Amino acid sequence: MKWSKYFIPTLKEVPVGTEAVSHQLLLRAGLVQMLTSGVYSYLPLGLKVLNRVENIIREEMNNAGAHELLMPCLHPIELWKKTGRDQVLDGIMIKFKNNRGHDMCLGPTHEEIITDLVRQFVQSYRQLPVTLYQIQTKFRDELRTRFGIVRASEFIMKDAYSFDRDVDGLRKSYQIMFDAYKRIFSRMELDVAVIAADSGAMGGDVSHEFMIGAPIGEDAVVSCPSCKAQSGVTENQDQGKTCPQCGKGILTKQSALELGHIFQLGTKYSSALAAEYIDEDGKRNPMIMGCYGIGVSRVVAAIIEKYNDDKGIKWPASVAPFDVEILPIAKSADDEIMKLSEKFYSELRAKGCDVLMDDRSESAGRKFNDADLIGIPLRITIGQRNLVEGKVEIKLRQTGEVMLVEVNDVLMKIMELKK
Amino acid sequence: MKWSKYFIPTLKEVPVGTEAVSHQLLLRAGLVQMLTSGVYSYLPLGLKVLNRVENIIREEMNNAGAHELLMPCLHPIELWKKTGRDQVLDGIMIKFKNNRGHDMCLGPTHEEIITDLVRQFVQSYRQLPVTLYQIQTKFRDELRTRFGIVRASEFIMKDAYSFDRDVDGLRKSYQIMFDAYKRIFSRMELDVAVIAADSGAMGGDVSHEFMIGAPIGEDAVVSCPSCKAQSGVTENQDQGKTCPQCGKGILTKQSALELGHIFQLGTKYSSALAAEYIDEDGKRNPMIMGCYGIGVSRVVAAIIEKYNDDKGIKWPASVAPFDVEILPIAKSADDEIMKLSEKFYSELRAKGCDVLMDDRSESAGRKFNDADLIGIPLRITIGQRNLVEGKVEIKLRQTGEVMLVEVNDVLMKIMELKK
Repeated sequence: MKWSKYFIPTLKEVPVGTEAVSHQLLLRAGLVQMLTSGVYSYLPLGLKVLNRVENIIREEMNNAGAHELLMPCLHPIELWKKTGRDQVLDGIMIKFKNNRGHDMCLGPTHEEIITDLVRQFVQSYRQLPVTLYQIQTKFRDELRTRFGIVRASEFIMKDAYSFDRDVDGLRKSYQIMFDAYKRIFSRMELDVAVIAADSGAMGGDVSHEFMIGAPIGEDAVVSCPSCKAQSGVTENQDQGKTCPQCGKGILTKQSALELGHIFQLGTKYSSALAAEYIDEDGKRNPMIMGCYGIGVSRVVAAIIEKYNDDKGIKWPASVAPFDVEILPIAKSADDEIMKLSEKFYSELRAKGCDVLMDDRSESAGRKFNDADLIGIPLRITIGQRNLVEGKVEIKLRQTGEVMLVEVNDVLMKIMELKK
Repeated sequence: MKWSKYFIPTLKEVPVGTEAVSHQLLLRAGLVQMLTSGVYSYLPLGLKVLNRVENIIREEMNNAGAHELLMPCLHPIELWKKTGRDQVLDGIMIKFKNNRGHDMCLGPTHEEIITDLVRQFVQSYRQLPVTLYQIQTKFRDELRTRFGIVRASEFIMKDAYSFDRDVDGLRKSYQIMFDAYKRIFSRMELDVAVIAADSGAMGGDVSHEFMIGAPIGEDAVVSCPSCKAQSGVTENQDQGKTCPQCGKGILTKQSALELGHIFQLGTKYSSALAAEYIDEDGKRNPMIMGCYGIGVSRVVAAIIEKYNDDKGIKWPASVAPFDVEILPIAKSADDEIMKLSEKFYSELRAKGCDVLMDDRSESAGRKFNDADLIGIPLRITIGQRNLVEGKVEIKLRQTGEVMLVEVNDVLMKIMELKK
């Protein structure tokens, strides 16, 4: 992609009214734009990151044997009444009456909808287990939207739901998702703490939260530096106390952001919505359910919270909007530097690299600032001073490491670094 | 994908209350499920088709130089008041007051939102032209939802918007989209009629509709069999009259379904929302806009309307949910037929084929019926009778053509047919 033809509206100034670093950088790097409080557009660069995050999640869900579907945003309120959650979630649920006079709401989550769907299609034990998921837009009418896309009224979630015959089956399905979650966050280079958690409004017995330490976190995690035990903060495990697991370390407390939450739901929804299967003996039983969420758009913010410096974002390679940025410092459009840039551009693309070339007629300073801001992992800088010696500069955004490379070795070097 | 592990809830019976063939087949082939009137879930097989349709559109939009972004569903009503369309679209717009007391609506389209977005980022003539698009969920509170996903309250659209300095620029941007639309529909094997049309609620001067002949169409197209001239039905060009273009043919009328609509909007939205750029002389001018829609979910229905027979769907290869279905007629799970099926399954997948294998312990009859119903383009049937002669059957769903192929030639033959 040539920058001059693309749409990356970077901002020099920190936007007013923003607290979180991720919120500031999402706006400054031209990744998102606020339409109204808690409601954001993903600009082209931001959408590319979002898609890369989604695709990591999708691959791991598919590898775990879950099947993707897509449920609607518009829900009839009747289904929510059957579980009583029209009341439990009343404060955040967006409701309206449609033109036919039916009471509708916008889905804040989809337990009721998927349970009703599976009820209609699954009758026999032979059809179980099954895990279904979607990557879809959710709505919560937050009074206190905060930190940009971290706590928004409209946001993207991956929500998966497992259906089993018995609790043993649920435990297996749950473990498969648990393991998939570990791989997902590891691929995004997010070092999450996994905390046994409270099930809250979801119901059920067992639940785990996947948390990332971040200054904007609204929850907290205490960790033991000695035995690495971690847990959510409770009254008995506050910071400064000795770790109960090993008795040695002194617990330290860090604010943390919830990125994923998985639940063993049991029969709460299947009983209320009559999602039953017939077992070998011809007996009807409610299906045993689990549910598994990841805040997809929130993950994008968390990655930026984790990977940034005072100049901008430092994307991990797995989610970066481009693999490589080419930055020519050229005086005119037709000189040797531009020709070499074009050559690298086509050759790298032919090798499957996703390349951004900053072909704008901006000052070198502006280009360097923007490159640091949008944070593409590898940068090739082509300037006169190095080129007279037959060399160009490759810079790694994450480490700051700089290397001078012979023009003929650039492709090989980039492909090696990209791995 | 193994059918036994997948989620394809096919129905034997035609669901009650359905008129359109596409609606019946979408339900029967396990592609969609109705949550409530005009609101559908896409089941795994349906989502795969939807994604393939989206990706054709995405590729052609990107090749045409448009950039993808993602705008929100939740809109503040203020922006709609500025163009007066809160009134024009009042009957179909879903409105509500949020927790902070702000009047909001769900986007039925995005002209107001994109114009306000571009206004904030584009100031200079140097930043023009630019065309942005999204593939996103829209909401229209239809009183008369019809024909399943054809006229739904929640549906998926591709909407693109071009911004130019002048009318010449708009004409160029419009032509680029016009050409991209022709390629999009051609790749989906939809032989669309392109009709100069009325701009309706959008405003602007020039507009074209992309229509497909279909019994469920709510519009109509008249065609001349002699000179191939086509147009929307007006009072002067009704069926049975002589074609005005060539004077020879007798016009025939066919009901048709609108799949795409493109508009030269001019300055209607940019003037109302003050989306201006500064030209070379330092003068402010409203940007000149175009907008370009495709009903993505409706396209899926249109393809089924066009490609079906009394047994089911006959997907064109470009949008089929799988490339190949393997259908073993085996007596037990470990016999020679299953082993050969597994071998074809892995080898074809290794070659990049998307393969569905019907490994269920269902009767051959049930498997054949389901295969015809879901309509995968190529089917490999492995049965005892042919296998004793070292052969398997390959059947083309679209033409019904059947060929007996030596076991060793199957891979080569499939790869040849798949092209």
